[in-house]
Amino acid sequence: MSKLLTAYETAEWLKEHDNYLILTHRRPDGDTVGCAGGLAQGLREQGKTAYVFTNPEITPRYLRFMEDHIAPEGYEPEHVIVVDTASYDLFPKNADIYKGSISLCIDHHSSNTHYAELLCLEDERASCGEVIFDILMTMTGSVSASCAECLYAAISTDTGCFAFGNTTANSLFVASMLIEAGAPVKELNKLLFRTKTRSRIMIEGMITTGLEYYFNDKVAIAVITNEMMKTARAAEDDIDDIASLPGGIEGVCIGITIRELTSSQDCKISVRTRDPYNANEICGHFGGGGHTLAAGASIAKTTDEVKKALLDILGGMAI
Amino acid sequence: MSKLLTAYETAEWLKEHDNYLILTHRRPDGDTVGCAGGLAQGLREQGKTAYVFTNPEITPRYLRFMEDHIAPEGYEPEHVIVVDTASYDLFPKNADIYKGSISLCIDHHSSNTHYAELLCLEDERASCGEVIFDILMTMTGSVSASCAECLYAAISTDTGCFAFGNTTANSLFVASMLIEAGAPVKELNKLLFRTKTRSRIMIEGMITTGLEYYFNDKVAIAVITNEMMKTARAAEDDIDDIASLPGGIEGVCIGITIRELTSSQDCKISVRTRDPYNANEICGHFGGGGHTLAAGASIAKTTDEVKKALLDILGGMAI
Repeated sequence: MSKLLTAYETAEWLKEHDNYLILTHRRPDGDTVGCAGGLAQGLREQGKTAYVFTNPEITPRYLRFMEDHIAPEGYEPEHVIVVDTASYDLFPKNADIYKGSISLCIDHHSSNTHYAELLCLEDERASCGEVIFDILMTMTGSVSASCAECLYAAISTDTGCFAFGNTTANSLFVASMLIEAGAPVKELNKLLFRTKTRSRIMIEGMITTGLEYYFNDKVAIAVITNEMMKTARAAEDDIDDIASLPGGIEGVCIGITIRELTSSQDCKISVRTRDPYNANEICGHFGGGGHTLAAGASIAKTTDEVKKALLDILGGMAI
Repeated sequence: MSKLLTAYETAEWLKEHDNYLILTHRRPDGDTVGCAGGLAQGLREQGKTAYVFTNPEITPRYLRFMEDHIAPEGYEPEHVIVVDTASYDLFPKNADIYKGSISLCIDHHSSNTHYAELLCLEDERASCGEVIFDILMTMTGSVSASCAECLYAAISTDTGCFAFGNTTANSLFVASMLIEAGAPVKELNKLLFRTKTRSRIMIEGMITTGLEYYFNDKVAIAVITNEMMKTARAAEDDIDDIASLPGGIEGVCIGITIRELTSSQDCKISVRTRDPYNANEICGHFGGGGHTLAAGASIAKTTDEVKKALLDILGGMAI
């Protein structure tokens, strides 16, 4: 088990030590990247040496939030810090060498496996960016504009621009402080939330025109085939959170996305429900699971077979 | 010219008087409805009599924010208050009878025509909801949960869930205070931002699959025909802000939406640009206008003719 630190204790520890390397998680999102960039920037402003470890899976969209801080070849840190990463499984491949020697983990996931020596865990926060903000404010009483830019990216992306169910008063309060501190909110919102890739637009178009409705339109099913992904030249990034599309249609209580995997004999389903329908239960029929209103499963069937199986299961429920 | 009041002076005036009727603007949005409901609720909690005047164009989506306060038939107010409404032109038809006898207007539009006797205008605010919040906080030092619910709807809808360019630190700060006061943020976000009508989904699907790209994909053109609207059973509400779709595609500098009007000989165009392209200038060629990055025009041509004319104009620009 890690030794647990409060934000205050973490700030004290960071002040007392130096020469940090900060790791992000695999398939890096705005939260992990913004936290790493914001923390590195904040520590540097305190006269510390701090770098972010390069992440081979970083996308151009998020690179800007850490590129100024990437560790030079051969940098030998005294302390390795990991942000927004619940377990070793989520380490990117190139970070394997640091497993077993993590000084500090800063996180907001209650599923954190306590792999670090010290752990600052605030699991009531919607984003890890809010935890970093708490720590930096304790250290210095303010954040710079460049730091604020990174943390705004972290908080806003992890809350879906404050629209997801995890959004709290604190998320909005911290975001407002970051704007006051100079985060370019207009530019960041345009970049992060009001711009879609052409592939995303094409996939959305194909999904929406192909949507199928069942059980008095209470169930909507979207299918994403390999062919569609190829036609749209779409990568995984382009279909991020796309399961919310069928689940977000007025009147639909059960929104299902069936995704054909590389082998057309395998599928992944994502189920989004509204109360009282239980996504976890539906996915349980296929050996999957998740939360009550959002769950998933991997199934060794074709998309057509999965759809049929799903409709059979739903037919047995009172919809 | 109206007599200008600060939020503090407005609060004082509201305390001194009684028996209010609150008007909203035509094609009521979340801001005007949320302001009316929130102000009525806040005034009632202060022991005042306050009602919201019914608005014939209210949609089910927004009705909940004012339905508890709709004035009974025959109610005779001492003072009529108008919220979020810049001019008489924006009065709904049934409110014509009150023109010339508005005691107080509370607004955030710098274009306000000073039609009311008293005017509380905070044009640096992204939403009128923020102005109402300032006034109620001055009056009472807090807002109730039902009041907070209305004002959260006002602020969040007018800022596009805090993603539009008008969003400020104050918008986020006030929203965070409203959540603390009991606004059901999870439920409201789901209702207001994560639910689309089936017609909207269909129209988006048709638009995205029909998008045309020109000038090395720097220009994207979407066409909405009457036929499409009919097929999708779409109303005006369903295509609200749809012009942001072609303008929000990565790499697109000029996004154009051409909307066929009831007579197929007439069109409306909406142009969204990125710096350095000037939407106002493009629409100026058709006698329209607006802002540098967002403008529109009405044109007495068919959609095909308009598209040809636009491509000619764009061909003469350095894109």
